Amino acid sequence: MLPDRLRNLSYLLARLPGVGEKTAQRFALHFIGEGRGLATDLGQALSELDAQIGTCEHCGNIAEYDADGRAVCKVCSDDRRDPRLLCIVAKIQHLLAVENSGAMRGRYFVLGQLLSPLDGIGPDELPIQRLKERIRAAGVTEIIVATPPSVDGEATALFLARELAHLDLTISRIASGVPHGGDLEFADRITLGRAIDGRRGMDTPR
Amino acid sequence: MLPDRLRNLSYLLARLPGVGEKTAQRFALHFIGEGRGLATDLGQALSELDAQIGTCEHCGNIAEYDADGRAVCKVCSDDRRDPRLLCIVAKIQHLLAVENSGAMRGRYFVLGQLLSPLDGIGPDELPIQRLKERIRAAGVTEIIVATPPSVDGEATALFLARELAHLDLTISRIASGVPHGGDLEFADRITLGRAIDGRRGMDTPR
Repeated sequence: MLPDRLRNLSYLLARLPGVGEKTAQRFALHFIGEGRGLATDLGQALSELDAQIGTCEHCGNIAEYDADGRAVCKVCSDDRRDPRLLCIVAKIQHLLAVENSGAMRGRYFVLGQLLSPLDGIGPDELPIQRLKERIRAAGVTEIIVATPPSVDGEATALFLARELAHLDLTISRIASGVPHGGDLEFADRITLGRAIDGRRGMDTPR
Repeated sequence: MLPDRLRNLSYLLARLPGVGEKTAQRFALHFIGEGRGLATDLGQALSELDAQIGTCEHCGNIAEYDADGRAVCKVCSDDRRDPRLLCIVAKIQHLLAVENSGAMRGRYFVLGQLLSPLDGIGPDELPIQRLKERIRAAGVTEIIVATPPSVDGEATALFLARELAHLDLTISRIASGVPHGGDLEFADRITLGRAIDGRRGMDTPR
C-alpha cells in the first residue's frame, strides 16, 4: 500500500537501535505529514556524516576528519589533558558520560565491545594490541578501567588487568556502590555488598 | 563534547515523534558506530523524499508526484474502486489500517485532524469545504465515518453527520464493540455498553 520509496525508507529507519517496523513506519509517515521539510534537513545532515565524522585514530572517540583525512578527537588533541592517565571504556556513550562527570583529567581508550562468551566475543575480538601500543607510545603510567559493573564488564576488567600486569602501571577500577541519592532500602544485595567491600576511610577531626 | 555536526543531527532526530534527547543522541552515535554506512543510505532516501512524495490532491493519502508535479494516490487512480462510497478518516495511518482490512471497496478522505477543543482545533480547522466539493465532484452517495471511537473522534463524527445532513447521503459510523479475540471479562464498561447497544440480528435457521 505504501509507495516503494516510503517502504524503502521504513526499512532503513528500522535499522536504528530500538526501532521496530511500526515505529519506522510512524517516522516515515511523519516526514510526509506534520514533519514536512524535516526529511530534507535530516537527509542533508546524514548524507554528509559518513564522509565527515569518524572515530579518533588514537582512542576511538568521535572525531571530525581534517583536511588530510585524519581524525583526532577533541580530548586527544587537548594538550592540557594528562597523557599518562588513560581511562578504558567499552563504548563512546560511556566515554561521553565519564567526560560529562568532569572527573577525568586524562585521556581515553574505547574498546568497542566487552568480552561476552554468549555473544561469541572472546579475547581476540578486543583491541589489546592497539591498547598496548597506545600505552607505550603515550607513556601511560596509570590506567582506570571504566567498564560497567556488569558480568561482561567485570570479566573484561579482570582480563585487562591480567593482560597489562607485566607492564609497569597503576591499574584501578571505578567504584561500584550505592548511587548518589540512592536509597539503601531499595539497593540490591550485590550493590550493597560492593558498597561495603569498597568502603573508604573517613577523616576524623579531633 | 559532541562535534557540532553530530549535535545538529541529534536536534533534528529529536523532532521525530516519540524521540527525546537521549534517544536522538543514541541514534546519532549509532550512525558513526555500528550503523556505519546507514547514514549515507538514509540521507539519500530522505533528501529525495520531500520532492518526490506528497499527499493525494483528491483524498490526502500518500502519493508520488508524477511528471507534471501532480499527486494522485493509488486508491484514487484505481478505476475498480467505487467512487460513490467515501470513507472519512482522521489521518493517513488510519487509512492504511482500513485499507489493510480489505473491507473498504470505495475511496477515502483524510481529515488531517479531529475536533479537539483542548488543543484549540475547532470546526474551522477541518477541511469541510474540500470534503463537500469532493462529495459533489465524485458523485458520492454513501459515507462511512471511520474516525476513532474516542471523545474527539465521536465529536468529529457527530459534527460531520450534522454538516452533511442536508446532502442526499447515506451516512454510517464504524462499529464500536469488543475487539476480535477480546475477552468480555477484561472489556471496559463503555466498550461493553457499545457492544450491546450495537448488537446485530442473527440468522436463525429453522
